[in-house]
Formats: sequence, C-alpha cells, structure tokens
Amino acid sequence: MKYTIETVLCTTLLPLFELEGKQVVVIDVLRATTSITTALANGAQSIIPVASKEEARKWSEKGYLVATERGAVKLDFANFGNSPQEFTPERVEGQEIVYSTTNGTVAITSAAEARSVMLGSFANLSAIAEHLEWQADADLVLLCSGWKGMFNLEDTIFAGALASRLLEGGSFSTRDDGTNAAIDLWRQAKDDLLRYMDKLAHKDRLESLGLLDSFARCFDIDTTDVVPQYVAGRILPGPLGRG
Amino acid sequence: MKYTIETVLCTTLLPLFELEGKQVVVIDVLRATTSITTALANGAQSIIPVASKEEARKWSEKGYLVATERGAVKLDFANFGNSPQEFTPERVEGQEIVYSTTNGTVAITSAAEARSVMLGSFANLSAIAEHLEWQADADLVLLCSGWKGMFNLEDTIFAGALASRLLEGGSFSTRDDGTNAAIDLWRQAKDDLLRYMDKLAHKDRLESLGLLDSFARCFDIDTTDVVPQYVAGRILPGPLGRG
Repeated sequence: MKYTIETVLCTTLLPLFELEGKQVVVIDVLRATTSITTALANGAQSIIPVASKEEARKWSEKGYLVATERGAVKLDFANFGNSPQEFTPERVEGQEIVYSTTNGTVAITSAAEARSVMLGSFANLSAIAEHLEWQADADLVLLCSGWKGMFNLEDTIFAGALASRLLEGGSFSTRDDGTNAAIDLWRQAKDDLLRYMDKLAHKDRLESLGLLDSFARCFDIDTTDVVPQYVAGRILPGPLGRG
Repeated sequence: MKYTIETVLCTTLLPLFELEGKQVVVIDVLRATTSITTALANGAQSIIPVASKEEARKWSEKGYLVATERGAVKLDFANFGNSPQEFTPERVEGQEIVYSTTNGTVAITSAAEARSVMLGSFANLSAIAEHLEWQADADLVLLCSGWKGMFNLEDTIFAGALASRLLEGGSFSTRDDGTNAAIDLWRQAKDDLLRYMDKLAHKDRLESLGLLDSFARCFDIDTTDVVPQYVAGRILPGPLGRG
C-alpha cells in the first residue's frame, strides 16, 4: 500500500483538502520557504511564522528580530525583507527570527492541523525528498502558497519536482490531477529551469521593485540538507544529513 | 494593444477574478460543454442552464425536457444525462432543454456578469478560436469548471489549446501563470490527446459508473462550427460558419 500525494495549487483551494493525519510540505519558492530554509541552514535557531504584519510589529516592539514584507516590499520596522541573501551566517547565527510574508507564512500557519509540516524549496529538494522517502508514514499534501490566493507556476513546478522524485522512490503514488499537472510542468521546465522561469508573472513584480537580485538564487537546487519543520509555532532546522 | 488572456483553473478561484466587461469561455470538457455544444449542433433550439437540481426538477414538472446529473449520474426525473451521444438529432431537433450538472452549469451561471459568455470544448476548438480572433473586442477569461470546485486536467488542457491558438492569431497576449501552465500542459498532451487523458482522475469516476462510452468522444476535435453563447438565461447556438 503506497501513500498518496495530493497538490493544493494555491491557498484558496485549501478548504477543499483534508490535512488531518497527513504530512504537508509548504512551498513558497519566491521567496519565503527558500529564505527561511537559507536562514536555518546559516545557523538561525528558529523562525516564528506569523500570518499578519500587525503580529510581526508586536514582536518587533518586544525586541525580536523580524523579517516582514507585503507585496514583496520590506516593511519599515523589519530587520529583514524576504530575500535569501539577507540571511547571512553573520546576521542569523543562533537567532530566533519572527517571519511574516504575503503568502508563505500564511500557508504555513494554515497547515497547523496536519500531522507534520515541512518547508520545501529548490534549496532543499533532495533533502526533503529523501526525508519523506525514508520516513514515509502518512499521505502527503503539497501546499503551494501561490500569490494572494492565486495559482503561480514556480510553486507548482517545485511540487512537480518533489512529487516526481517521490514517485520514483516507490513509497508514494498519485491519481490527483493537480499533482500530475505539476509533474508535467516540471518535466517541461527542468532542462533549463531558470530560463523557463522567465515567463513568471512574479518575475515582473520583483523586477519592478528592484528585487531581481534574489531571483536566480531561488532556483538553485540542493544548496542545503536542512528540512525545516513547523512544530508548536516554530520552524526548526529539522534533521541534518540525508536519510 | 493586445487583449489579455487569464485562466481560472477552477470555480473556487472565480471570486479572485474580475469578469465584468470581459469575454468568458466556460469549459467543462467532461462533459457539460461538450454535450451542450453537441445538442445545439444537432438542432436543439436552446439550452436553459440551471445551477441546482431542485430548479431542474421544477422545470421537469412543468413539462420541459431536462438533462440533469450529479456526480456524473443521471437523476431519475431527467430525460437526458450528460453524455454527448444522448443528444441525437432525433431527440433534440427544435427542442428547448433545461440542463443542470455538477460543475459545468454552475460555472456558466456564475459568469453571468461578463460582457459575453461562450461555451468551449474540443468539439468546437477551431470555431471558438476563430470567432474570438475575428471579433476580439475585450480581454478574455477562460473559466475551467473543474470537479466540485477543484482543479482538473482536462478543462485546463482545453484552455491551453485555445489560448495557444489565440496567441498565434496575434490579437491576444498573456502574462498569466494559469494560462501559461495550461499552454504547457496542452503542449505535452496534444500529440496523443486521448492517451494523455488516461491519467485523469475523472476517467476513473466515469469508468466506475459505466459511463466510459462517452469519454473518447469528448476529445474529438472540431466536430462542429457551433459557438454556443449564453444570453439572457439561455444558451443559443451562436454564429455558424467560421469567421
């Protein structure tokens, strides 16, 4: 008996899926799950995801480091925006960072009812695939954050990359149209991932905000072995090493 | 200045899109838009789409012919289910038919605020592409009915087929991730469309209900020139002939 894979193509569709008892991978390639994974790989102790910017502001007033953006723009009270290169070892080592973004942290906190919640991005594709394969013990839901509730290509294509690896591994199967679409999009994108991503609507947004310097980095595959896990309100680095 | 194309991947996402002033193509390949287009091509005078089965029952009690299914199964009071081959010239010529299905007719009636609403399916792919190309006068929204509010592959792939034709035509452009995903899925499917559709979750449902006899027919391309239009509560055959 194999475990199933389903893909939630954007957060608006989340109420149509059952998460209880399942493993969930939250995906926000541009840029929350990439940046949080980078921060943890660079030594941050934990990340506290909060859904609203008001919550983030309160934590900031209490003296916490906060990373906060809306519509990709860093808010004035924040220490960090949402670009992976901001989270250098010098700035994050041993730190606890409160994190709030337009899409990604909303998706993470929405998945709290699941049995386990991990963060996926191209930065940890192999690590998360191997982690899931080795300890497959429940059906899996891939939760794409999307953009303001809507579908986006980059999260879906990462879902396809991960699902494709897991189907090869043999512990999972799927008969879910969303997952099959994601896999077929990954097949088209994978030979030249960065070039494929030229068509993204979100590339235009980042470009118009002068934030394109973090774009290519978000499609670098396997820069870390960290598999971030969301446990009791905090995102922790999770297992290091593969399998 | 070109008109834009956006794709609503399933009806749950409809509130995130603006339809006012736009042209909308409603898509329910398996099977409402295929069957309604077939009925009109075979001489039905008009189709009255109604969202609920209770409404359909009331029309039936008033003596109207009704086509009604839920979960792909024909309801007991209905004259027709939702298979295109039921709508033969002998049974539909000159008739007005009340129509209510799980997904398709809900999508059609949800789009009433648009400037114009057409029905698309593989049966009229070229006809609708040429119609839109010749009288392009507003931005376009491709509305995939999906399955119970969720994404499905078959409607998305038809959206991709249509969008792909329209972009070649030159009057439309897109920077919408949903539309680009649909186009890329169509590219993977088009060389052997019916074989690609083996992976559909909805194929399993139809098979388990003994309804697979209508499956292949729903992927026959260009069987008619009819472009059904939803006007003032009725779906009419629309322009005959291409361009």
